[in-house]
Amino acid sequence: MARVGIYGATGYTGFELIKLLVRHPDVEIAFATARSAAGQRLCDIFPTFIDQPLVSGDQVDLSGVDLIFTCLPHNTPDLIPIVRSALDAGVRVVDFSDTFRISDPARYAYWRKKEHPAPDLQLEAVYGLPERYREQIRNARLVANTGCYPLTVIFPLYPLVQAGLLADATVIADSKSGVSGAGRSLALKTHFGETHETFSAYNVGRTHRHIAEMEQETGLHLIFAPHLLPVYRGILSTIYVTLKPGVSHADVRAAYAIYANEPFIHLMPEGRLPELRHVAGTMDVAIGVQPVEPERGSYILVACVDNLVKGASGQAVQNMNLMLGFEETSGLR
Amino acid sequence: MARVGIYGATGYTGFELIKLLVRHPDVEIAFATARSAAGQRLCDIFPTFIDQPLVSGDQVDLSGVDLIFTCLPHNTPDLIPIVRSALDAGVRVVDFSDTFRISDPARYAYWRKKEHPAPDLQLEAVYGLPERYREQIRNARLVANTGCYPLTVIFPLYPLVQAGLLADATVIADSKSGVSGAGRSLALKTHFGETHETFSAYNVGRTHRHIAEMEQETGLHLIFAPHLLPVYRGILSTIYVTLKPGVSHADVRAAYAIYANEPFIHLMPEGRLPELRHVAGTMDVAIGVQPVEPERGSYILVACVDNLVKGASGQAVQNMNLMLGFEETSGLR
Amino acid sequence: MARVGIYGATGYTGFELIKLLVRHPDVEIAFATARSAAGQRLCDIFPTFIDQPLVSGDQVDLSGVDLIFTCLPHNTPDLIPIVRSALDAGVRVVDFSDTFRISDPARYAYWRKKEHPAPDLQLEAVYGLPERYREQIRNARLVANTGCYPLTVIFPLYPLVQAGLLADATVIADSKSGVSGAGRSLALKTHFGETHETFSAYNVGRTHRHIAEMEQETGLHLIFAPHLLPVYRGILSTIYVTLKPGVSHADVRAAYAIYANEPFIHLMPEGRLPELRHVAGTMDVAIGVQPVEPERGSYILVACVDNLVKGASGQAVQNMNLMLGFEETSGLR
Amino acid sequence: MARVGIYGATGYTGFELIKLLVRHPDVEIAFATARSAAGQRLCDIFPTFIDQPLVSGDQVDLSGVDLIFTCLPHNTPDLIPIVRSALDAGVRVVDFSDTFRISDPARYAYWRKKEHPAPDLQLEAVYGLPERYREQIRNARLVANTGCYPLTVIFPLYPLVQAGLLADATVIADSKSGVSGAGRSLALKTHFGETHETFSAYNVGRTHRHIAEMEQETGLHLIFAPHLLPVYRGILSTIYVTLKPGVSHADVRAAYAIYANEPFIHLMPEGRLPELRHVAGTMDVAIGVQPVEPERGSYILVACVDNLVKGASGQAVQNMNLMLGFEETSGLR
Repeated sequence: MARVGIYGATGYTGFELIKLLVRHPDVEIAFATARSAAGQRLCDIFPTFIDQPLVSGDQVDLSGVDLIFTCLPHNTPDLIPIVRSALDAGVRVVDFSDTFRISDPARYAYWRKKEHPAPDLQLEAVYGLPERYREQIRNARLVANTGCYPLTVIFPLYPLVQAGLLADATVIADSKSGVSGAGRSLALKTHFGETHETFSAYNVGRTHRHIAEMEQETGLHLIFAPHLLPVYRGILSTIYVTLKPGVSHADVRAAYAIYANEPFIHLMPEGRLPELRHVAGTMDVAIGVQPVEPERGSYILVACVDNLVKGASGQAVQNMNLMLGFEETSGLR
Repeated sequence: MARVGIYGATGYTGFELIKLLVRHPDVEIAFATARSAAGQRLCDIFPTFIDQPLVSGDQVDLSGVDLIFTCLPHNTPDLIPIVRSALDAGVRVVDFSDTFRISDPARYAYWRKKEHPAPDLQLEAVYGLPERYREQIRNARLVANTGCYPLTVIFPLYPLVQAGLLADATVIADSKSGVSGAGRSLALKTHFGETHETFSAYNVGRTHRHIAEMEQETGLHLIFAPHLLPVYRGILSTIYVTLKPGVSHADVRAAYAIYANEPFIHLMPEGRLPELRHVAGTMDVAIGVQPVEPERGSYILVACVDNLVKGASGQAVQNMNLMLGFEETSGLR
Repeated sequence: MARVGIYGATGYTGFELIKLLVRHPDVEIAFATARSAAGQRLCDIFPTFIDQPLVSGDQVDLSGVDLIFTCLPHNTPDLIPIVRSALDAGVRVVDFSDTFRISDPARYAYWRKKEHPAPDLQLEAVYGLPERYREQIRNARLVANTGCYPLTVIFPLYPLVQAGLLADATVIADSKSGVSGAGRSLALKTHFGETHETFSAYNVGRTHRHIAEMEQETGLHLIFAPHLLPVYRGILSTIYVTLKPGVSHADVRAAYAIYANEPFIHLMPEGRLPELRHVAGTMDVAIGVQPVEPERGSYILVACVDNLVKGASGQAVQNMNLMLGFEETSGLR
Repeated sequence: MARVGIYGATGYTGFELIKLLVRHPDVEIAFATARSAAGQRLCDIFPTFIDQPLVSGDQVDLSGVDLIFTCLPHNTPDLIPIVRSALDAGVRVVDFSDTFRISDPARYAYWRKKEHPAPDLQLEAVYGLPERYREQIRNARLVANTGCYPLTVIFPLYPLVQAGLLADATVIADSKSGVSGAGRSLALKTHFGETHETFSAYNVGRTHRHIAEMEQETGLHLIFAPHLLPVYRGILSTIYVTLKPGVSHADVRAAYAIYANEPFIHLMPEGRLPELRHVAGTMDVAIGVQPVEPERGSYILVACVDNLVKGASGQAVQNMNLMLGFEETSGLR
C-alpha cells in the first residue's frame, strides 16, 4: 500500500479526491490538511460517513509518504514551499492548481501577466494529461493536473489537429459548466438564489485562464465562451470547426481512432451526441461528431466530462496510478 | 401619489418589495437605502432593468415621506433609531424583522432570552396580519410584518381554533421552505453546492424563532420541524391535527367560511391539496383539508404561500395599502 | 372591452396566455377550448385559481368575438379550417404555430419539404414581430406569432445587418432553452429524470425548423445549435460574429440605437452581459455586446427572452394590442 | 461467477441494477429483458456506455442461471408465471414489486382489496430486509425486495418498538421522495414542467400502498404523508413520536445499538440530523434522533436512503449476495 497525503481537503476537489482514495485498493491516506477546519473530521464538514481527521499543514509528517496532492486555492503563497519541501523529501506531487500547467515561459507571462514564481519547477513539471503524456508522467516528480474546461476542448480537437484536417486555426468553443467548478468558497455567484433557475455567460472571449492550456495542447487560437449551468457536476463544450476542402466524413471518424485503446474516452456512435448524464460521476470523456454542412467543411463537436472526476480528482488519481506504478485505471471504475 | 422609502434594498425582500412598488399605481419611491452598495443603482446589483438609485442611510430625507419599510437584517442595532426617527417625523413604518411581532413581554422574553429593546414600541406595534387585524392596521403608526412560516401554520389552524374543533392543544407542523427564506447573505447553507439536489431538516422541535408568532396567534403549542427545499420560492406546511369526537367533516369545512371574502385566501376544493406552484409569485394562500381517519378525528392540513410575496414583501404592501387608505389589493394582483 | 377566444388552453403557452389576459384591462375571454379536458375548468388542469371553463372546439360561438388565438400543436389538421372560419366571420387571428411565419413559398418548401397547405393565407399573414412590422400588424387579419429561439437571434443580429457591419454572411448561434419550450405533451425528453441535472445539444446544425425564420428576418446563413437547459423558462443565445475591417466599437453600439424607443428591448451597459433572470417572467429582451478581439472584428452577442412570454404568449398579446388599437404595452408590464 | 438475469431493464431500477451488477466481482449478467426496446442495447436507451443487449422475455434461456431479478411494473400479469417458471427451473428470484411483501393474507386483502394471486408464493416469500431477516433470506427461493419509503420509517422506528419505548401505537411519518421513485413511465406528474421548482403532498393519510409494509414490520399504526421533492434521488422521512414517561435520552440512544454492526446503517452523532446528500448514490441509511420536549417524551426522528440504491436495486444486490453466499457487501461499496 502506498501512502498519500492531501493538502486542502475541504474544497470540492479535495472531498472528491478523498472519496476516490478511500476505496482505492492500492493506497492509504497518510494525512489530510485543512485550514480553518483543522482538528475536526471530514464527516463534520461534509455530509459523509468518511471519518478522516483533518490536520493543519504544519502538523504534517512526510516520512513514509509516497505522494502528495495539493488541492489548494489558486495563488496560495504556501504552494511553492509545500511542493519544494515534498520534492526535497523525495515525495512526488500532483498539483491541482494552474501554476505548473503552462510550460513555455512566454505563454505563461502573456496569460498570467507576470513571471513564473518558480521557473525551475515550471520547467520540470509534466502536464498531467495521461492520454498524451503517459510516459513522462510515470517518471515525473511533479505533475500539473489538467484544468476542467480544457479537457472538453483538447480531447475533441486534438485528433483533427494531429491529422491536419482543420482549415482554420481559429476555433470557437462554447462551454457550459456546472456550479461545482466555481468551488466551495462563498461568493454571490454561487449562492443558490443567484444560480438556480438561471443561466449566464461569463469571462467570454479571450480572458479565461484555461485558454492558455487549450492553446498549448492544440496549437490553435481559441474563442472561448464559458457559461454557468444550474447543475452541480459536469462540463459540456460545443465546438464549431471548419475542415479543409476534400476532407471526407470517413477521414474525420478515422482521426479519432487514436483513442481506440483509451480506457476512458468514448466516441459516440454516428448520429448521436453525448449529454452530461453520460459522464456525471465517472471518469468518462464522451465525444460526439456532427456534420453540419459537410460540403462547406462545417462540423460541430460536442464533448463532456465530469469536472470533479476526470476534470480534477479522478484525473489526479489516474496520474498517481501512473506515477506509482499501479494499473492506470485502479480505483477509477 | 404617496411617497415611500425602503431601508435595506439589496436583500431578497427589499428587491421583491421594489418590484411591487414600481408597478403600484398609488405610490412612488422616495428613496431606497443600501449599505455597501450605496452609490450604485438597483440594476447594478440585481438582474433587473429597474434603475433605482441606492443611497446610504444617512443621506435619507424624510420630509414629504408617508411611510417607510424597514427590510434590515435581524438584530441590526440601527433599527430602533430608524423607527423612532420616522415616527417622530410623522412617518409610518412597516417593519420586516421579528422585533415587534410578539406583543406579550413574557412571551418575548421566553423566546428571545432577553428584554425587549424598546418596550413602548413593542406595546404600540400591530401584528401585520391583515386578515385578522385589518382595523388596527389602518390606524397603526408601526406595523410588524408577519414571518413567512407562520402564515402557513396560522391560516389553516386559526379557523379550527376559532370554532373550537381541536381535541389537542399540541399540534405538529412539518414545514418546507425554499432557499430564498434564508436571505441573500453568504453562508455555506445557501451555497448552490450545499443546497441543490438535497433536502434537510434544521432547527427542529421547539427552537425556531417563528414558533412564538404561531403560538401567539393560535393559542396552540407547536412542534415545528422546518426543512430546506431546493427551490427558490415558496413554503408549504403539512399539519397533523386531531379533532374533538363528534366533529363532522361539514363542521370542518364550515369553519373555513371565515375566509370567504378574503381576497387572497383560497380553500381547495374537496379532495385536492395545494402545491407550491399554486402560489409562487403571487399573494395567494392555498389551504387544503384532508381527512385521514375521520372516525378518530385525524386530519391533515396542507397550506402554502410564496415566502417573498404574501410571506414578506407583498404582505408589507397589503399593510401599507390599509395604512394609507388605498384599495387593500392595490398593486397586488 | 374586446372579446377574445383561445383555441388550445391546456398547453403551456395557452395557460400563460390566459394568465396574461385575465389581468389585461381591455379584453375579456369569450371562450377557451381544450380537447380532452373540455368540460373541466382551467383550475382543474393547472395549479391556478383561474376558474375559466374549457369547452370543446365545436361548442365555440364566434359571434361578438373580435380576435382568436390559436395555440394548437404543430401540424394540427384543424388549424386551417379554424383560421378560415374565423376570418370569414370577421374575426382576426393570432396564430402560435409556425404555419404562417415563412412568407416565401420557396423558402417554405425548402425547410418544410412540402407545399404550403393554404398559400393564400401564407401570402396574407404578417410575421408577428412588432418591433419590425408594427404598421402591417395593426392592419393584419392574420398574424403569425414569432418562434421563441428566433427572437434571441434576430434581435441582436438585425441592427448589425441593417448597418452593414458584418464581414461574413454565415453566423454561429449557440442557443440554450428551458424545458417549457418543448411543451406539455408527454415525452421522455421532458421527463424530470431525463432532463434534470443534465444538459444536452439536439437538432444541431441546419435542421431546426426555426432557422427558416432567423434567415428570413436577417438575410444571413445560420449554423444553429440548440441545447436543453434544466430550467423551466428562458432562452439565451450566444452568437459569434465577425465585423468588417475598420468597424469601430462605437459603430457597433450605434447600430443598436434603432431600439432606443422600443419598450421591451434593453441593450446592456458596456461590459455587462444579460442572464436568464433578467427576463424570466417578463416581456423584456436583453442584449449584450462583447468585443473579443476587436482588431480582428471578433464579437460575441448574448441575447435572452422568456420563451413563454416575449417568446410566445406575451408577444401574442402585444400583437393583439396593435391589432385592436390598444396601447401596445397594455397588460404587459 | 454466478449468472443472473434481469426482467425489466429499462426502468430506473433496472438500469440502476445493471450499473451495480456490471461492477460486481462475483456475478455476470446472463440476460436483460425489455419490452418495446428488445433488440436494442442498454446504451441506446440510457446515457451510458454499458453495451448490454436487451432481449424480449420469450427469448430467455434460464439454463445455467442462478438467480433472476424481476423489475417489472406493478400489477404486470406476467409476473407470477415468470416467478413460477424460474422456481420450477431451480432459479432463485428477487422480486421488486409489492406482490410478495405482505405475508399475512388478511393484511394483504385489507390493503390490496383483493385476494393474493398466488397464495403459495405469498406464504413462501421472505421479506427482503437483510438487517432483520438475514438468515431466512440466505435460504429463500423467493425474496420480496422492500419498498423504498418503508426503509426510512422501519429503520428508525424498529429499535424503539423493540425496546418498548413508545407511548403511542400511532405514529406520524412525513416523507419526502425524489422523482425517480415515480419511475420512468410517462406521466404528467413526472413531466419536468410539473415537478421542477414546486413541491406537493400526495396520497396523504392512510392510502399509500407502502403503509402495509411499515405496519407489518413495526406493529405500529401509521399516519403517512408522502411528498414529491424536486430532486432525482433520495427519500427523507421526518417522524414524530412520543416516548413512555421515564424513558431517558440514554435509553433512546441505547435502543439503536442493535445496528452497531450493520454495515450500511449509521446513527448520526448527538445533535446532528442527516440530509439526502449523506446517502445519495450509496447503500447507506442515515438516522438522526432529536429530542423536542424530552420531559413530555416528544422526539423527532429523521431518516433517509437513496430510493434507487438501498431503497431498490442495491437492496436487491444485498439480498442476492446473501442468497448466493457472497460477502453481504460485495459490489456495494
